[in-house]
Amino acid sequence: MTESIPAAGGEGPLAIVCGGGALPLAVADAVMRRGRRVVLFAVRGFVDPERVAHYPHRFIAVGQFGRFRRLAAQEGCRDVVLIGTVLRPAIRQVRLDWDTLRHLPRMLAMFRGGDDHLLSSLGRLLEDHGFRLLGAHEVAPEILVPQGIIGRRQPTERDRADIARGMAVLSAIGPFDIGQAVVIAQGHALAVEAAEGTDRMLARIAELRRDGRIRSAPGTGVLVKGPKPGQDRRFDLPTIGPQTVAAAARAGLAGIAVVAGATMIAEPHQVAAAADAAPIFVVGIADDGHRR
Amino acid sequence: MTESIPAAGGEGPLAIVCGGGALPLAVADAVMRRGRRVVLFAVRGFVDPERVAHYPHRFIAVGQFGRFRRLAAQEGCRDVVLIGTVLRPAIRQVRLDWDTLRHLPRMLAMFRGGDDHLLSSLGRLLEDHGFRLLGAHEVAPEILVPQGIIGRRQPTERDRADIARGMAVLSAIGPFDIGQAVVIAQGHALAVEAAEGTDRMLARIAELRRDGRIRSAPGTGVLVKGPKPGQDRRFDLPTIGPQTVAAAARAGLAGIAVVAGATMIAEPHQVAAAADAAPIFVVGIADDGHRR
Repeated sequence: MTESIPAAGGEGPLAIVCGGGALPLAVADAVMRRGRRVVLFAVRGFVDPERVAHYPHRFIAVGQFGRFRRLAAQEGCRDVVLIGTVLRPAIRQVRLDWDTLRHLPRMLAMFRGGDDHLLSSLGRLLEDHGFRLLGAHEVAPEILVPQGIIGRRQPTERDRADIARGMAVLSAIGPFDIGQAVVIAQGHALAVEAAEGTDRMLARIAELRRDGRIRSAPGTGVLVKGPKPGQDRRFDLPTIGPQTVAAAARAGLAGIAVVAGATMIAEPHQVAAAADAAPIFVVGIADDGHRR
Repeated sequence: MTESIPAAGGEGPLAIVCGGGALPLAVADAVMRRGRRVVLFAVRGFVDPERVAHYPHRFIAVGQFGRFRRLAAQEGCRDVVLIGTVLRPAIRQVRLDWDTLRHLPRMLAMFRGGDDHLLSSLGRLLEDHGFRLLGAHEVAPEILVPQGIIGRRQPTERDRADIARGMAVLSAIGPFDIGQAVVIAQGHALAVEAAEGTDRMLARIAELRRDGRIRSAPGTGVLVKGPKPGQDRRFDLPTIGPQTVAAAARAGLAGIAVVAGATMIAEPHQVAAAADAAPIFVVGIADDGHRR
Protein backbone atom coordinates (compact mmCIF):
# COMPACT_ATOMS: atom_id res chain seq x y z
CA MET A 1 0.00 0.00 0.00
CA THR A 2 2.93 2.36 -0.57
CA GLU A 3 1.48 4.37 -3.39
CA SER A 4 3.05 7.56 -4.55
CA ILE A 5 2.41 9.93 -7.36
CA PRO A 6 5.41 10.65 -9.63
CA ALA A 7 7.14 13.97 -8.94
CA ALA A 8 6.43 16.93 -11.17
CA GLY A 9 9.52 16.45 -13.30
CA GLY A 10 8.98 12.88 -14.51
CA GLU A 11 6.25 12.69 -17.13
CA GLY A 12 4.50 9.37 -16.60
CA PRO A 13 1.59 8.13 -18.66
CA LEU A 14 -1.43 10.38 -19.01
CA ALA A 15 -4.52 9.31 -17.05
CA ILE A 16 -7.63 9.84 -19.18
CA VAL A 17 -10.70 9.59 -16.95
CA CYS A 18 -13.35 8.92 -19.53
CA GLY A 19 -17.01 8.44 -20.15
CA GLY A 20 -18.70 7.51 -23.38
CA GLY A 21 -18.32 8.71 -26.94
CA ALA A 22 -15.53 8.73 -29.49
CA LEU A 23 -13.75 11.73 -28.04
CA PRO A 24 -11.71 10.06 -25.25
CA LEU A 25 -10.36 7.58 -27.79
CA ALA A 26 -9.51 10.37 -30.23
CA VAL A 27 -7.61 12.14 -27.45
CA ALA A 28 -5.84 8.89 -26.51
CA ASP A 29 -4.84 8.34 -30.14
CA ALA A 30 -3.54 11.90 -30.46
CA VAL A 31 -1.51 11.69 -27.24
CA MET A 32 -0.02 8.34 -28.27
CA ARG A 33 0.90 9.77 -31.69
CA ARG A 34 2.89 12.36 -29.76
CA GLY A 35 4.80 9.52 -28.10
CA ARG A 36 3.24 9.58 -24.64
CA ARG A 37 1.63 6.58 -23.01
CA VAL A 38 -1.95 6.77 -21.81
CA VAL A 39 -4.10 4.84 -19.33
CA LEU A 40 -7.85 5.10 -19.74
CA PHE A 41 -9.78 5.15 -16.47
CA ALA A 42 -13.08 4.07 -17.95
CA VAL A 43 -16.18 4.98 -15.97
CA ARG A 44 -18.35 1.88 -15.72
CA GLY A 45 -21.77 2.22 -17.29
CA PHE A 46 -20.71 5.07 -19.54
CA VAL A 47 -18.03 3.51 -21.75
CA ASP A 48 -18.26 0.69 -24.26
CA PRO A 49 -15.92 -2.01 -22.82
CA GLU A 50 -15.11 -3.34 -26.30
CA ARG A 51 -13.83 0.01 -27.48
CA VAL A 52 -11.59 0.69 -24.47
CA ALA A 53 -10.20 -2.86 -24.70
CA HIS A 54 -7.85 -1.63 -27.44
CA TYR A 55 -6.11 0.73 -25.00
CA PRO A 56 -4.36 0.29 -21.64
CA HIS A 57 -7.30 0.77 -19.29
CA ARG A 58 -8.77 0.31 -15.82
CA PHE A 59 -12.43 0.47 -14.82
CA ILE A 60 -13.69 2.80 -12.10
CA ALA A 61 -17.17 3.81 -10.97
CA VAL A 62 -18.45 7.32 -10.35
CA GLY A 63 -17.44 8.24 -6.79
CA GLN A 64 -14.52 5.80 -6.51
CA PHE A 65 -11.96 8.45 -5.90
CA GLY A 66 -9.94 6.15 -3.62
CA ARG A 67 -9.77 3.45 -6.28
CA PHE A 68 -8.76 6.00 -8.87
CA ARG A 69 -5.97 7.35 -6.63
CA ARG A 70 -4.65 3.83 -5.98
CA LEU A 71 -4.74 2.71 -9.62
CA ALA A 72 -3.29 5.98 -10.91
CA ALA A 73 -0.40 5.63 -8.46
CA GLN A 74 0.20 2.02 -9.59
CA GLU A 75 0.25 3.18 -13.21
CA GLY A 76 2.58 6.08 -12.41
CA CYS A 77 0.11 8.72 -13.64
CA ARG A 78 0.34 12.26 -12.32
CA ASP A 79 -1.33 14.17 -15.15
CA VAL A 80 -5.07 13.70 -15.50
CA VAL A 81 -7.54 14.60 -18.23
CA LEU A 82 -11.31 14.32 -17.69
CA ILE A 83 -13.27 13.68 -20.83
CA GLY A 84 -16.43 12.24 -22.28
CA THR A 85 -20.07 11.94 -21.42
CA VAL A 86 -20.03 11.30 -17.70
CA LEU A 87 -20.67 14.77 -16.51
CA ARG A 88 -24.15 14.66 -15.09
CA PRO A 89 -24.24 11.57 -12.90
CA ALA A 90 -27.34 11.05 -10.81
CA ILE A 91 -26.66 10.54 -7.12
CA ARG A 92 -27.92 6.97 -7.35
CA GLN A 93 -25.26 6.12 -9.96
CA VAL A 94 -22.52 7.06 -7.53
CA ARG A 95 -20.64 4.11 -5.97
CA LEU A 96 -18.89 5.47 -2.92
CA ASP A 97 -15.64 3.93 -1.70
CA TRP A 98 -13.94 4.55 1.65
CA ASP A 99 -11.63 7.24 0.44
CA THR A 100 -14.56 9.02 -1.15
CA LEU A 101 -16.53 8.75 2.08
CA ARG A 102 -13.79 10.66 3.89
CA HIS A 103 -14.41 13.47 1.43
CA LEU A 104 -18.16 13.05 1.48
CA PRO A 105 -19.23 16.55 2.57
CA ARG A 106 -17.04 17.95 -0.16
CA MET A 107 -18.31 15.40 -2.69
CA LEU A 108 -21.94 16.14 -1.89
CA ALA A 109 -21.32 19.86 -2.14
CA MET A 110 -20.07 19.19 -5.68
CA PHE A 111 -23.46 17.86 -6.67
CA ARG A 112 -25.20 21.07 -5.77
CA GLY A 113 -25.16 23.84 -8.32
CA GLY A 114 -24.34 23.53 -11.99
CA ASP A 115 -21.80 21.55 -13.91
CA ASP A 116 -19.17 24.25 -13.68
CA HIS A 117 -19.33 23.93 -9.95
CA LEU A 118 -19.17 20.11 -10.01
CA LEU A 119 -16.24 20.04 -12.36
CA SER A 120 -14.15 22.76 -10.78
CA SER A 121 -14.67 21.12 -7.37
CA LEU A 122 -13.52 17.80 -8.80
CA GLY A 123 -10.50 19.53 -10.33
CA ARG A 124 -9.53 21.07 -6.99
CA LEU A 125 -9.93 17.73 -5.23
CA LEU A 126 -7.56 16.08 -7.71
CA GLU A 127 -5.04 18.88 -7.37
CA ASP A 128 -5.18 18.75 -3.57
CA HIS A 129 -4.10 15.13 -3.89
CA GLY A 130 -1.07 15.90 -6.01
CA PHE A 131 -2.52 15.30 -9.46
CA ARG A 132 -2.18 17.84 -12.22
CA LEU A 133 -5.40 18.39 -14.12
CA LEU A 134 -4.95 19.17 -17.82
CA GLY A 135 -7.43 20.05 -20.52
CA ALA A 136 -7.89 17.65 -23.42
CA HIS A 137 -7.06 20.56 -25.72
CA GLU A 138 -3.68 20.97 -23.97
CA VAL A 139 -2.58 17.39 -24.56
CA ALA A 140 -4.21 16.99 -27.99
CA PRO A 141 -4.82 20.38 -29.62
CA GLU A 142 -5.73 18.67 -32.91
CA ILE A 143 -9.12 17.75 -31.43
CA LEU A 144 -10.22 21.40 -31.44
CA VAL A 145 -12.44 22.77 -34.20
CA PRO A 146 -10.43 25.26 -36.32
CA GLN A 147 -11.79 28.51 -37.73
CA GLY A 148 -13.72 28.16 -40.99
CA ILE A 149 -16.01 25.57 -42.49
CA ILE A 150 -15.81 21.80 -42.07
CA GLY A 151 -17.17 20.20 -45.21
CA ARG A 152 -18.17 22.27 -48.22
CA ARG A 153 -21.32 24.21 -47.34
CA GLN A 154 -21.06 27.87 -46.27
CA PRO A 155 -23.41 29.74 -43.94
CA THR A 156 -25.45 32.48 -45.66
CA GLU A 157 -25.70 36.05 -44.43
CA ARG A 158 -28.95 35.18 -42.68
CA ASP A 159 -27.28 32.21 -41.02
CA ARG A 160 -24.46 34.49 -39.87
CA ALA A 161 -26.99 36.83 -38.26
CA ASP A 162 -28.50 33.83 -36.44
CA ILE A 163 -25.01 32.78 -35.33
CA ALA A 164 -24.29 36.25 -33.91
CA ARG A 165 -27.58 36.22 -32.04
CA GLY A 166 -26.92 32.74 -30.71
CA MET A 167 -23.52 33.83 -29.40
CA ALA A 168 -25.20 36.81 -27.72
CA VAL A 169 -27.76 34.54 -26.02
CA LEU A 170 -24.98 32.20 -24.82
CA SER A 171 -23.18 35.23 -23.36
CA ALA A 172 -26.33 36.39 -21.59
CA ILE A 173 -27.00 33.02 -19.95
CA GLY A 174 -23.29 32.40 -19.27
CA PRO A 175 -23.30 33.70 -15.68
CA PHE A 176 -26.02 31.20 -14.76
CA ASP A 177 -24.17 28.00 -15.70
CA ILE A 178 -27.10 26.79 -17.79
CA GLY A 179 -26.01 25.23 -21.03
CA GLN A 180 -23.70 25.55 -23.94
CA ALA A 181 -26.05 25.58 -26.88
CA VAL A 182 -29.02 27.36 -28.41
CA VAL A 183 -30.94 27.07 -31.66
CA ILE A 184 -31.74 30.34 -33.44
CA ALA A 185 -33.84 30.60 -36.62
CA GLN A 186 -34.37 33.94 -38.31
CA GLY A 187 -33.48 35.77 -35.13
CA HIS A 188 -35.85 33.75 -32.98
CA ALA A 189 -34.60 31.40 -30.24
CA LEU A 190 -36.24 28.02 -30.82
CA ALA A 191 -34.50 26.22 -27.96
CA VAL A 192 -32.09 26.80 -25.12
CA GLU A 193 -30.14 23.83 -23.83
CA ALA A 194 -30.10 23.09 -20.11
CA ALA A 195 -30.05 19.69 -18.37
CA GLU A 196 -31.26 17.79 -21.46
CA GLY A 197 -28.07 18.15 -23.52
CA THR A 198 -27.62 19.04 -27.17
CA ASP A 199 -28.91 15.84 -28.77
CA ARG A 200 -32.22 15.92 -26.93
CA MET A 201 -32.59 19.62 -27.61
CA LEU A 202 -32.22 18.95 -31.34
CA ALA A 203 -34.70 16.06 -31.14
CA ARG A 204 -37.15 18.52 -29.60
CA ILE A 205 -36.75 20.90 -32.55
CA ALA A 206 -37.48 18.04 -34.95
CA GLU A 207 -40.61 17.18 -32.95
CA LEU A 208 -41.82 20.80 -32.79
CA ARG A 209 -41.37 21.06 -36.55
CA ARG A 210 -43.42 17.92 -37.14
CA ASP A 211 -46.15 19.38 -34.94
CA GLY A 212 -46.18 22.67 -36.85
CA ARG A 213 -45.04 24.60 -33.79
CA ILE A 214 -42.08 26.22 -35.52
CA ARG A 215 -42.69 29.07 -37.92
CA SER A 216 -39.40 29.14 -39.77
CA ALA A 217 -39.11 26.92 -42.85
CA PRO A 218 -37.11 23.67 -42.86
CA GLY A 219 -33.52 24.43 -43.82
CA THR A 220 -33.37 27.53 -41.61
CA GLY A 221 -31.90 27.86 -38.16
CA VAL A 222 -28.52 27.28 -36.63
CA LEU A 223 -27.28 25.26 -33.68
CA VAL A 224 -24.87 27.61 -31.92
CA LYS A 225 -22.58 26.02 -29.38
CA GLY A 226 -19.74 27.42 -27.32
CA PRO A 227 -18.11 27.29 -23.92
CA LYS A 228 -19.60 29.37 -21.15
CA PRO A 229 -17.85 32.72 -20.70
CA GLY A 230 -15.14 32.36 -18.08
CA GLN A 231 -15.44 28.57 -18.14
CA ASP A 232 -12.34 26.65 -17.06
CA ARG A 233 -11.50 25.06 -20.38
CA ARG A 234 -10.02 21.99 -18.77
CA PHE A 235 -13.58 20.79 -18.24
CA ASP A 236 -16.47 19.92 -20.40
CA LEU A 237 -15.59 21.85 -23.52
CA PRO A 238 -18.47 21.67 -25.97
CA THR A 239 -18.21 18.76 -28.35
CA ILE A 240 -19.57 17.93 -31.79
CA GLY A 241 -19.51 14.71 -33.75
CA PRO A 242 -21.28 13.03 -36.67
CA GLN A 243 -24.32 12.40 -34.43
CA THR A 244 -24.61 16.16 -33.84
CA VAL A 245 -24.70 16.71 -37.61
CA ALA A 246 -27.32 13.98 -38.03
CA ALA A 247 -29.47 15.45 -35.22
CA ALA A 248 -29.17 18.98 -36.65
CA ALA A 249 -30.21 17.69 -40.08
CA ARG A 250 -33.22 15.86 -38.59
CA ALA A 251 -34.13 19.14 -36.82
CA GLY A 252 -34.27 20.82 -40.24
CA LEU A 253 -31.48 23.28 -39.46
CA ALA A 254 -29.25 25.05 -41.96
CA GLY A 255 -26.13 24.32 -39.97
CA ILE A 256 -23.98 24.24 -36.88
CA ALA A 257 -21.68 26.99 -35.58
CA VAL A 258 -19.20 26.43 -32.78
CA VAL A 259 -16.53 28.55 -31.17
CA ALA A 260 -13.23 27.77 -32.93
CA GLY A 261 -10.41 26.67 -30.64
CA ALA A 262 -12.84 25.95 -27.82
CA THR A 263 -14.96 23.09 -29.16
CA MET A 264 -13.82 19.51 -29.44
CA ILE A 265 -14.43 17.31 -32.46
CA ALA A 266 -13.66 13.61 -32.30
CA GLU A 267 -14.10 12.61 -35.91
CA PRO A 268 -13.60 15.62 -38.23
CA HIS A 269 -13.65 13.57 -41.44
CA GLN A 270 -16.91 11.87 -40.55
CA VAL A 271 -18.35 15.23 -39.50
CA ALA A 272 -17.41 16.76 -42.87
CA ALA A 273 -18.86 13.79 -44.76
CA ALA A 274 -22.09 13.88 -42.74
CA ALA A 275 -22.40 17.67 -43.20
CA ASP A 276 -21.98 17.39 -46.99
CA ALA A 277 -24.43 14.51 -47.20
CA ALA A 278 -27.14 16.26 -45.14
CA PRO A 279 -26.34 18.92 -46.53
CA ILE A 280 -25.75 21.41 -43.74
CA PHE A 281 -22.86 23.71 -42.88
CA VAL A 282 -20.51 23.26 -39.93
CA VAL A 283 -18.40 26.27 -39.11
CA GLY A 284 -15.84 27.28 -36.48
CA ILE A 285 -16.32 30.93 -35.53
CA ALA A 286 -13.66 33.20 -34.01
CA ASP A 287 -14.65 33.96 -30.44
CA ASP A 288 -14.07 37.72 -30.51
CA GLY A 289 -16.56 39.88 -32.30
CA HIS A 290 -19.32 37.35 -31.88
CA ARG A 291 -19.64 37.58 -28.13
CA ARG A 292 -21.55 40.78 -27.75
CA MET B 1 -70.50 47.00 -47.31
CA THR B 2 -70.78 50.21 -45.30
CA GLU B 3 -68.94 49.07 -42.24
CA SER B 4 -67.82 51.47 -39.60
CA ILE B 5 -66.20 51.12 -36.24
CA PRO B 6 -68.03 52.83 -33.36
CA ALA B 7 -66.47 56.11 -32.26
CA ALA B 8 -64.28 56.22 -29.17
CA GLY B 9 -67.05 57.48 -26.89
CA GLY B 10 -69.63 54.73 -27.37
CA GLU B 11 -68.53 51.54 -25.64
CA GLY B 12 -69.79 48.69 -27.80
CA PRO B 13 -69.28 45.03 -27.02
CA LEU B 14 -65.74 43.81 -26.38
CA ALA B 15 -64.18 41.71 -29.15
CA ILE B 16 -62.25 38.81 -27.63
CA VAL B 17 -60.05 37.26 -30.32
CA CYS B 18 -59.37 33.90 -28.77
CA GLY B 19 -57.53 30.64 -29.12
CA GLY B 20 -57.81 27.59 -26.91
CA GLY B 21 -57.86 27.11 -23.17
CA ALA B 22 -60.12 28.20 -20.34
CA LEU B 23 -58.71 31.71 -20.10
CA PRO B 24 -60.69 33.45 -22.89
CA LEU B 25 -63.90 32.15 -21.36
CA ALA B 26 -62.85 33.30 -17.86
CA VAL B 27 -62.18 36.75 -19.30
CA ALA B 28 -65.54 36.73 -21.10
CA ASP B 29 -67.31 35.76 -17.88
CA ALA B 30 -65.54 38.48 -15.91
CA VAL B 31 -66.34 41.16 -18.49
CA MET B 32 -70.00 40.10 -18.63
CA ARG B 33 -70.21 40.20 -14.82
CA ARG B 34 -69.15 43.82 -15.11
CA GLY B 35 -72.13 44.39 -17.37
CA ARG B 36 -70.42 44.64 -20.75
CA ARG B 37 -71.32 42.51 -23.73
CA VAL B 38 -68.65 40.38 -25.44
CA VAL B 39 -68.25 38.76 -28.84
CA LEU B 40 -65.75 35.92 -29.07
CA PHE B 41 -63.83 35.79 -32.36
CA ALA B 42 -62.84 32.17 -32.11
CA VAL B 43 -59.80 31.12 -34.12
CA ARG B 44 -60.70 27.96 -36.00
CA GLY B 45 -58.59 24.95 -35.11
CA PHE B 46 -57.58 26.36 -31.74
CA VAL B 47 -60.88 26.66 -29.88
CA ASP B 48 -63.35 23.99 -28.83
CA PRO B 49 -66.56 24.88 -30.75
CA GLU B 50 -68.76 23.42 -28.00
CA ARG B 51 -67.30 25.68 -25.34
CA VAL B 52 -67.62 28.90 -27.34
CA ALA B 53 -71.20 27.96 -28.28
CA HIS B 54 -72.33 29.31 -24.89
CA TYR B 55 -71.17 32.82 -25.81
CA PRO B 56 -71.93 35.25 -28.64
CA HIS B 57 -69.26 34.22 -31.13
CA ARG B 58 -67.95 34.28 -34.68
CA PHE B 59 -65.34 32.02 -36.23
CA ILE B 60 -62.25 33.36 -37.97
CA ALA B 61 -59.07 31.75 -39.26
CA VAL B 62 -55.52 32.89 -38.66
CA GLY B 63 -54.74 35.52 -41.28
CA GLN B 64 -58.37 36.56 -41.94
CA PHE B 65 -57.88 40.12 -40.94
CA GLY B 66 -60.43 41.33 -43.49
CA ARG B 67 -63.09 38.95 -42.18
CA PHE B 68 -62.35 40.04 -38.63
CA ARG B 69 -62.67 43.74 -39.56
CA ARG B 70 -66.01 43.14 -41.31
CA LEU B 71 -67.51 41.02 -38.52
CA ALA B 72 -66.24 43.32 -35.76
CA ALA B 73 -67.83 46.28 -37.53
CA GLN B 74 -71.13 44.37 -37.88
CA GLU B 75 -71.04 43.58 -34.16
CA GLY B 76 -70.18 47.16 -33.24
CA CYS B 77 -66.88 46.23 -31.57
CA ARG B 78 -64.12 48.79 -31.26
CA ASP B 79 -62.20 47.43 -28.28
CA VAL B 80 -60.25 44.23 -28.89
CA VAL B 81 -58.56 41.79 -26.55
CA LEU B 82 -56.27 39.01 -27.88
CA ILE B 83 -56.12 35.97 -25.69
CA GLY B 84 -55.47 32.26 -25.58
CA THR B 85 -53.23 29.73 -27.17
CA VAL B 86 -52.99 30.90 -30.75
CA LEU B 87 -49.74 32.71 -30.57
CA ARG B 88 -47.37 30.60 -32.58
CA PRO B 89 -49.20 29.77 -35.83
CA ALA B 90 -47.19 27.99 -38.48
CA ILE B 91 -47.25 29.72 -41.84
CA ARG B 92 -49.16 26.82 -43.35
CA GLN B 93 -52.01 27.32 -40.87
CA VAL B 94 -52.57 30.84 -42.11
CA ARG B 95 -55.65 31.32 -44.34
CA LEU B 96 -55.17 34.56 -46.18
CA ASP B 97 -58.11 36.68 -47.24
CA TRP B 98 -58.08 39.61 -49.65
CA ASP B 99 -57.77 42.28 -47.03
CA THR B 100 -54.88 40.39 -45.48
CA LEU B 101 -53.20 40.08 -48.88
CA ARG B 102 -53.16 43.86 -49.20
CA HIS B 103 -51.15 43.90 -45.99
CA LEU B 104 -49.07 40.89 -46.93
CA PRO B 105 -45.57 42.36 -46.69
CA ARG B 106 -46.44 43.65 -43.25
CA MET B 107 -48.05 40.35 -42.26
CA LEU B 108 -45.05 38.35 -43.41
CA ALA B 109 -42.71 40.66 -41.54
CA MET B 110 -44.69 39.83 -38.42
CA PHE B 111 -43.76 36.20 -38.71
CA ARG B 112 -40.06 36.94 -38.56
CA GLY B 113 -38.53 37.39 -35.14
CA GLY B 114 -40.01 36.38 -31.82
CA ASP B 115 -43.49 36.47 -30.40
CA ASP B 116 -43.07 39.97 -29.00
CA HIS B 117 -42.49 41.16 -32.52
CA LEU B 118 -45.44 39.24 -33.96
CA LEU B 119 -47.83 40.48 -31.32
CA SER B 120 -46.79 44.10 -31.24
CA SER B 121 -47.02 44.19 -35.05
CA LEU B 122 -50.50 42.74 -34.88
CA GLY B 123 -51.41 45.31 -32.23
CA ARG B 124 -50.22 48.18 -34.43
CA LEU B 125 -52.10 46.82 -37.42
CA LEU B 126 -55.32 46.73 -35.39
CA GLU B 127 -54.77 50.24 -34.07
CA ASP B 128 -54.03 51.57 -37.56
CA HIS B 129 -57.49 50.34 -38.51
CA GLY B 130 -59.25 52.17 -35.71
CA PHE B 131 -59.46 49.40 -33.15
CA ARG B 132 -58.32 49.91 -29.59
CA LEU B 133 -56.26 47.03 -28.29
CA LEU B 134 -56.70 46.30 -24.58
CA GLY B 135 -55.01 43.83 -22.29
CA ALA B 136 -57.08 41.07 -20.74
CA HIS B 137 -55.90 42.31 -17.35
CA GLU B 138 -57.38 45.76 -18.11
CA VAL B 139 -60.88 44.46 -18.82
CA ALA B 140 -60.82 41.66 -16.21
CA PRO B 141 -58.22 42.35 -13.48
CA GLU B 142 -59.58 39.47 -11.40
CA ILE B 143 -57.82 37.02 -13.73
CA LEU B 144 -54.40 38.12 -12.47
CA VAL B 145 -52.50 36.09 -9.87
CA PRO B 146 -52.34 38.08 -6.60
CA GLN B 147 -49.31 38.22 -4.28
CA GLY B 148 -48.97 35.30 -1.88
CA ILE B 149 -49.77 31.62 -2.00
CA ILE B 150 -52.63 29.94 -3.85
CA GLY B 151 -53.60 26.82 -1.91
CA ARG B 152 -52.00 25.99 1.41
CA ARG B 153 -48.39 25.00 0.79
CA GLN B 154 -45.60 27.55 1.33
CA PRO B 155 -42.23 27.68 -0.47
CA THR B 156 -39.24 26.91 1.76
CA GLU B 157 -36.17 29.12 2.05
CA ARG B 158 -34.41 26.90 -0.49
CA ASP B 159 -37.38 27.24 -2.86
CA ARG B 160 -37.21 31.03 -2.43
CA ALA B 161 -33.55 30.98 -3.42
CA ASP B 162 -34.48 29.00 -6.55
CA ILE B 163 -37.26 31.50 -7.28
CA ALA B 164 -34.85 34.44 -7.02
CA ARG B 165 -32.42 32.69 -9.35
CA GLY B 166 -35.18 31.89 -11.81
CA MET B 167 -36.25 35.53 -11.90
CA ALA B 168 -32.63 36.50 -12.54
CA VAL B 169 -32.38 34.06 -15.46
CA LEU B 170 -35.64 35.39 -16.94
CA SER B 171 -34.23 38.92 -16.68
CA ALA B 172 -31.03 37.87 -18.43
CA ILE B 173 -32.82 36.25 -21.37
CA GLY B 174 -35.48 38.96 -21.49
CA PRO B 175 -33.80 41.07 -24.19
CA PHE B 176 -33.78 38.08 -26.56
CA ASP B 177 -37.52 37.38 -26.63
CA ILE B 178 -36.98 33.71 -25.82
CA GLY B 179 -39.50 32.42 -23.33
CA GLN B 180 -41.28 33.19 -20.12
CA ALA B 181 -40.34 30.27 -17.92
CA VAL B 182 -37.41 28.38 -16.43
CA VAL B 183 -37.06 25.50 -14.00
CA ILE B 184 -34.46 25.90 -11.25
CA ALA B 185 -33.55 23.20 -8.71
CA GLN B 186 -31.05 23.93 -5.95
CA GLY B 187 -29.62 26.81 -7.91
CA HIS B 188 -29.21 24.81 -11.10
CA ALA B 189 -31.22 25.60 -14.25
CA LEU B 190 -32.82 22.35 -15.41
CA ALA B 191 -34.72 23.83 -18.34
CA VAL B 192 -35.26 27.08 -20.19
CA GLU B 193 -38.47 27.48 -22.16
CA ALA B 194 -38.32 28.59 -25.78
CA ALA B 195 -40.57 27.50 -28.68
CA GLU B 196 -41.83 24.37 -26.90
CA GLY B 197 -43.97 26.16 -24.30
CA THR B 198 -44.29 25.51 -20.58
CA ASP B 199 -46.20 22.22 -20.67
CA ARG B 200 -43.69 20.52 -22.94
CA MET B 201 -40.80 21.92 -20.91
CA LEU B 202 -42.28 20.36 -17.77
CA ALA B 203 -42.84 17.06 -19.58
CA ARG B 204 -39.14 17.13 -20.45
CA ILE B 205 -38.18 17.52 -16.79
CA ALA B 206 -40.33 14.50 -15.91
CA GLU B 207 -38.60 12.50 -18.65
CA LEU B 208 -35.08 13.57 -17.59
CA ARG B 209 -35.91 12.55 -14.01
CA ARG B 210 -37.08 9.12 -15.16
CA ASP B 211 -33.82 8.71 -17.07
CA GLY B 212 -31.72 9.67 -14.06
CA ARG B 213 -30.40 12.78 -15.81
CA ILE B 214 -31.41 15.16 -13.03
CA ARG B 215 -29.34 15.24 -9.88
CA SER B 216 -31.76 17.03 -7.54
CA ALA B 217 -34.20 14.84 -5.62
CA PRO B 218 -37.91 14.63 -6.51
CA GLY B 219 -39.79 17.35 -4.65
CA THR B 220 -37.14 19.96 -5.37
CA GLY B 221 -37.14 22.60 -8.04
CA VAL B 222 -39.40 25.45 -8.99
CA LEU B 223 -41.12 26.48 -12.21
CA VAL B 224 -40.54 30.24 -12.37
CA LYS B 225 -42.69 32.11 -14.85
CA GLY B 226 -43.03 35.79 -15.57
CA PRO B 227 -43.51 38.29 -18.37
CA LYS B 228 -40.46 39.37 -20.32
CA PRO B 229 -38.96 42.65 -19.05
CA GLY B 230 -40.44 45.52 -21.01
CA GLN B 231 -43.10 43.27 -22.54
CA ASP B 232 -46.28 45.00 -23.69
CA ARG B 233 -48.66 43.46 -21.19
CA ARG B 234 -51.57 43.61 -23.58
CA PHE B 235 -50.13 40.50 -25.22
CA ASP B 236 -49.33 37.04 -24.17
CA LEU B 237 -49.08 37.47 -20.41
CA PRO B 238 -47.88 34.23 -18.85
CA THR B 239 -50.69 31.95 -17.82
CA ILE B 240 -51.14 29.13 -15.33
CA GLY B 241 -53.97 26.70 -14.84
CA PRO B 242 -54.69 23.32 -13.24
CA GLN B 243 -52.79 21.60 -16.07
CA THR B 244 -49.67 23.61 -15.17
CA VAL B 245 -49.94 22.34 -11.58
CA ALA B 246 -50.39 18.76 -12.79
CA ALA B 247 -47.41 19.03 -15.14
CA ALA B 248 -45.21 20.57 -12.39
CA ALA B 249 -46.19 17.74 -10.04
CA ARG B 250 -45.38 15.11 -12.68
CA ALA B 251 -42.01 16.85 -13.14
CA GLY B 252 -41.32 16.29 -9.44
CA LEU B 253 -41.10 19.99 -8.62
CA ALA B 254 -41.66 21.61 -5.24
CA GLY B 255 -43.80 24.36 -6.70
CA ILE B 256 -44.61 27.15 -9.10
CA ALA B 257 -43.75 30.85 -8.72
CA VAL B 258 -45.20 33.51 -10.98
CA VAL B 259 -44.99 37.28 -11.06
CA ALA B 260 -48.01 38.64 -9.16
CA GLY B 261 -50.16 41.09 -11.10
CA ALA B 262 -48.61 40.00 -14.38
CA THR B 263 -49.68 36.36 -14.74
CA MET B 264 -53.14 35.21 -15.71
CA ILE B 265 -54.99 32.40 -14.00
CA ALA B 266 -58.23 31.09 -15.46
CA GLU B 267 -59.40 28.79 -12.71
CA PRO B 268 -57.92 29.85 -9.34
CA HIS B 269 -60.05 27.45 -7.27
CA GLN B 270 -59.08 24.46 -9.38
CA VAL B 271 -55.44 25.57 -9.25
CA ALA B 272 -55.56 25.75 -5.44
CA ALA B 273 -57.23 22.35 -5.21
CA ALA B 274 -54.72 20.78 -7.60
CA ALA B 275 -51.78 22.35 -5.73
CA ASP B 276 -53.00 21.03 -2.37
CA ALA B 277 -53.66 17.58 -3.80
CA ALA B 278 -50.22 17.28 -5.46
CA PRO B 279 -49.00 18.74 -3.01
CA ILE B 280 -46.96 21.62 -4.43
CA PHE B 281 -46.91 25.33 -3.72
CA VAL B 282 -48.14 28.03 -6.09
CA VAL B 283 -47.07 31.53 -5.21
CA GLY B 284 -47.42 35.01 -6.68
CA ILE B 285 -44.18 36.96 -6.15
CA ALA B 286 -43.88 40.75 -6.10
CA ASP B 287 -41.98 41.83 -9.18
CA ASP B 288 -39.52 44.20 -7.53
CA GLY B 289 -36.65 42.77 -5.55
CA HIS B 290 -36.71 39.53 -7.51
CA ARG B 291 -35.62 40.91 -10.84
CA ARG B 292 -31.95 41.37 -10.28
